[in-house]
Amino acid sequence: MQTSQRIQNRAIAEKVVSAETAAALVSDNMVIAVSGFTPAGYPKAVPQALAERAKKGEKIGITLLTGASVGPEIDRDLTETHVIKRRFPYQNNKAMRDAINAGVIEFADIHLSHLPVWMKNGYFGDIDLAIVEAAQVDEEGRIYPTTSVGISNVAVRLAKRVVIEVNSAQPLSLVGIHDIYDVEKPPLTQPIPLTAPNQRIGLPYISCDPEKIAAVVLTDIPDSTVPVAPVDETSEKIAGHLIEFLHKEVSAGRLPRNLHPLQSGVGSVANAVLSGLVRSDFEHLFVYSEVLQDSVLDLIDAGKVDFASATSLTLSPERFPYFYRNIDQYRDKILLRPQEISNHPEIIRRLGLIAMNTAIEADIYGNVNSTHIGGTRLMNGIGGSADFARNAGISIFLTESTAKDGLVSSIVPAVTHVDHNEHSVQVIATEQGVADLRGLGPVRRAREIIDHCAHPKFKSMLESYFYQACERSKYKHIPL
Amino acid sequence: MQTSQRIQNRAIAEKVVSAETAAALVSDNMVIAVSGFTPAGYPKAVPQALAERAKKGEKIGITLLTGASVGPEIDRDLTETHVIKRRFPYQNNKAMRDAINAGVIEFADIHLSHLPVWMKNGYFGDIDLAIVEAAQVDEEGRIYPTTSVGISNVAVRLAKRVVIEVNSAQPLSLVGIHDIYDVEKPPLTQPIPLTAPNQRIGLPYISCDPEKIAAVVLTDIPDSTVPVAPVDETSEKIAGHLIEFLHKEVSAGRLPRNLHPLQSGVGSVANAVLSGLVRSDFEHLFVYSEVLQDSVLDLIDAGKVDFASATSLTLSPERFPYFYRNIDQYRDKILLRPQEISNHPEIIRRLGLIAMNTAIEADIYGNVNSTHIGGTRLMNGIGGSADFARNAGISIFLTESTAKDGLVSSIVPAVTHVDHNEHSVQVIATEQGVADLRGLGPVRRAREIIDHCAHPKFKSMLESYFYQACERSKYKHIPL
Repeated sequence: MQTSQRIQNRAIAEKVVSAETAAALVSDNMVIAVSGFTPAGYPKAVPQALAERAKKGEKIGITLLTGASVGPEIDRDLTETHVIKRRFPYQNNKAMRDAINAGVIEFADIHLSHLPVWMKNGYFGDIDLAIVEAAQVDEEGRIYPTTSVGISNVAVRLAKRVVIEVNSAQPLSLVGIHDIYDVEKPPLTQPIPLTAPNQRIGLPYISCDPEKIAAVVLTDIPDSTVPVAPVDETSEKIAGHLIEFLHKEVSAGRLPRNLHPLQSGVGSVANAVLSGLVRSDFEHLFVYSEVLQDSVLDLIDAGKVDFASATSLTLSPERFPYFYRNIDQYRDKILLRPQEISNHPEIIRRLGLIAMNTAIEADIYGNVNSTHIGGTRLMNGIGGSADFARNAGISIFLTESTAKDGLVSSIVPAVTHVDHNEHSVQVIATEQGVADLRGLGPVRRAREIIDHCAHPKFKSMLESYFYQACERSKYKHIPL
Repeated sequence: MQTSQRIQNRAIAEKVVSAETAAALVSDNMVIAVSGFTPAGYPKAVPQALAERAKKGEKIGITLLTGASVGPEIDRDLTETHVIKRRFPYQNNKAMRDAINAGVIEFADIHLSHLPVWMKNGYFGDIDLAIVEAAQVDEEGRIYPTTSVGISNVAVRLAKRVVIEVNSAQPLSLVGIHDIYDVEKPPLTQPIPLTAPNQRIGLPYISCDPEKIAAVVLTDIPDSTVPVAPVDETSEKIAGHLIEFLHKEVSAGRLPRNLHPLQSGVGSVANAVLSGLVRSDFEHLFVYSEVLQDSVLDLIDAGKVDFASATSLTLSPERFPYFYRNIDQYRDKILLRPQEISNHPEIIRRLGLIAMNTAIEADIYGNVNSTHIGGTRLMNGIGGSADFARNAGISIFLTESTAKDGLVSSIVPAVTHVDHNEHSVQVIATEQGVADLRGLGPVRRAREIIDHCAHPKFKSMLESYFYQACERSKYKHIPL
């Protein structure tokens, strides 16, 4: 790496140390905030060095704050070495999930738009250290993030000390792709002037008091993203039903021809469903979401999407090289913002977002479980889904109608954990069809969901349950 | 009533008809939107005339949209005469509740900030008729609302035809107390320029195309508000704990000395708790809420509150005459806005609101039931509580620790209907104390709630349940 190009400020360049030296800044009981949102743009070398310290028998327990999930160098390795004691606001790593479900790590799901607010409000106490990944530090000491922004701007601003990992595996061409806008605390908060996904309202870098920079570490470890599952028949069917639903909305005059900006949850099903739009006749679409997956690039390549805004760029390992070779053709089509902006209720409501998030299970009255199997076993977490679902113009949930290779129904009489309740779920789509719940009372919602979303092999069971509930229930509003 | 003063536009004055004639504009299957938010500012004469038509045997079934609950002239009488077939988004009338629970009226809880958005999006189809109460119609045909704004501005704008009830029981001095700001639909939505509760951003009237005004009816029926229950010892204790909590937040630097703007739920408990602030040493407080009850006037009178913004002024029958005699001293201290603004996520997040809403029951993991007894019997509805709880700076829920004269615990192992889930409930206060759930995983939340909020006579039972759940549960994150 040509260090002088990556770190243009001489005083800061003098702070370059080994990952081990930087990791020595971490001590027991610290609250540490790191960059990263999904396995994109998170620090890698310092967490690895920290894991090494723990492996050698040092007792270090930290509270870890991130944007969302991060890569295995943090969530797996710092779990296995017992460094992480408390973890907010989201994760999707097996080792960590097991540790949380074993009661070893304390975890709380926090809406992703809330986390930066809570940090600023001091709900986690002082932030001892921020560790952020950068593509570049310029002459003025400004920090240019990499493949995500997440909470980095807030972490750098609030932390007592800052460690920067300058990662040469992240191309310099990422510089300029970010739009950093800081929201002041009340009563000084001003309206956020964003009225379209493609609008720039901030600066392409994170400002940082150079005095606070305690160490800089040079790395060349790529983001540990995972391949996306190939689009399967089920996802294609869900996408087909969704496109049909959106067409109807346009025909009825409830949406413009290019729809409202689209938000899509993270993961293979959401990715596949979004990919389905490539075969639709929609054009000039906008994406305003938290994560850009491969499908969004497909939609841009296909001329369907004019612009996509998010807080994270999480491409598959196969897709990243292609993206970087052609980054100039995407430069005026994508933008990464802090998660406080990508997930902000103000912007989500203003844009009238079409929110599409995935469910583990949905019940016949329209409640959705996104987080806990059987109400007790944590899967990943609520993430940003409720930021979007709660404030969107229309809130859609996607799920296959069955789970466990068809052994169980994803449409159930009552979900075992309520993450999105009947008040905030407007449409449910499965490979069987679409239930449009807007303006329906619970009884008609149940009929709509059973009729249109349940798998044929579970339909009669659900009908029978619902019939009996209606018969036996003293109260006919929500018959139980 | 001096009609020329109340209706200054001659062409509109010529549209004055009897309530019976206006009620004849209603026909079967219409979608009708009326003014009113709580029993304040709702039309009275035309609904009564409509009830008379039904009593005489006419078959009229309507879908009724309101701001929130309205007075008995609508919710009771049009239920008992079977005129209301579908009802959104909130109610609190016994006759109507019984009809909903009997399955006779279709009802769906809709977040109050969503309703105007859904109306504009066309989710209820065309609005056939708007019936709104006014204090005055001026020379230009502008409509000046009375004791609430609610959805009136949206209803007048969207409805095919408009009926105005000019009510001389509502003093002309109400003119000027409103601030009407219309939010355009996406993609034309602009940032709402409101940055403080006392800021005016709109106009004091609702504009209306005079061509759409189908009838004007003169009435003199007062709002049918109800007395507030006297402050009891339990409410005083809840208020005491809440004040202590707020003091701690100020001491820790997490809130300024005059706090952030306060939102308070509707009803006697919320009213009593807010009244408790009269005896606190907080000063220069602001209220940004949906309803102003007697307690807010107490706080203004006591010099505690500098300004209060809401969408409805719902004073007790005893308090209204005093308020009207002294309205000039309140004129620069209160303001009524459309519910789209009072409950807007953009403003709630921007102001960092302290949201205080009431719970029917809360569970040990922090989920709150606000709507359904036993998960099946509707009480009132979710109202605006989730607008505030979900987007506030801090979300507090209040409940007595027991219900049914102490026979049952309001703190339970698992709520039977989830209106506010563990992700959106940060503080729970009962007369026993305050549970501060911020940054705690489910297990520590359970201990905090049992320790601080449960009634002593139910505490050992809850401890025993929780102990056993921890012992037997395979998964220790949320032990079931």
